[in-house]
Amino acid sequence: MAISKATAEWTGDLKSGRGVMRPGNASEVPFSMGTRFEGQKGGNPEEMIGAALAGCFSMAMSLGLEKAGITLRNINTSAKVHLEKDGEGFAIPRIELATEVRATGGDEAKIRTIAEATKKGCPVGKALKAQIDLDVKVLST
Amino acid sequence: MAISKATAEWTGDLKSGRGVMRPGNASEVPFSMGTRFEGQKGGNPEEMIGAALAGCFSMAMSLGLEKAGITLRNINTSAKVHLEKDGEGFAIPRIELATEVRATGGDEAKIRTIAEATKKGCPVGKALKAQIDLDVKVLST
Repeated sequence: MAISKATAEWTGDLKSGRGVMRPGNASEVPFSMGTRFEGQKGGNPEEMIGAALAGCFSMAMSLGLEKAGITLRNINTSAKVHLEKDGEGFAIPRIELATEVRATGGDEAKIRTIAEATKKGCPVGKALKAQIDLDVKVLST
Repeated sequence: MAISKATAEWTGDLKSGRGVMRPGNASEVPFSMGTRFEGQKGGNPEEMIGAALAGCFSMAMSLGLEKAGITLRNINTSAKVHLEKDGEGFAIPRIELATEVRATGGDEAKIRTIAEATKKGCPVGKALKAQIDLDVKVLST
């Protein structure tokens, strides 16, 4: 139905080389060994996965709440993506999502139930093998 | 080992609302129904997934080639992420990766073999359920 495009480039060897990711044409996210594995300032692929999941989840929540007659004011979601050693390489076993929902017309339990369903049902959530742990805060509007 | 952070926000309902994804603190990627489903200019979560995979694959190729005694000059990878209707919702069944490798010290067959292994072995590739179709071009340096 929709096809989204992105590109990336890597120049040089692993340790001294550098890369850049371009989601669409709008933005550039530089990355390197240092920004991925050594906590240096800059981007990395895991951040992009976290942003994709947090974005997809937040957007899907607006639909889920709407279907339940709840009016969303806004939702803020953060993702912590865990990159861990896995044999010879690395893996992403777990993502922590924490979301804050400001909405009217629904009780907290209902909003939590919708959030859990959205985590499993949104396209990016479905596309990932990682375990997704969700923390939901419902804030008064 | 490493934890990467990202955030996203959504304000308002699905159709007229708007969102923003923030991978790390460096960049902001606005998105909406229009930019995700209707081809309007702007970002969407699928682009972020594509950038993450293209970036991870390109970086991992630098290591794979190095291990095989091949010197990478640079690698350019593009991703096309397919978002398709899936029951009541949507899913990401397939990602097309196309990569162009400029390297010295290895023959084309060897580079292709390393690329196929990298597709399956890089952390983001391993984290995704989608089918990944890879097209490899080896360019003379």
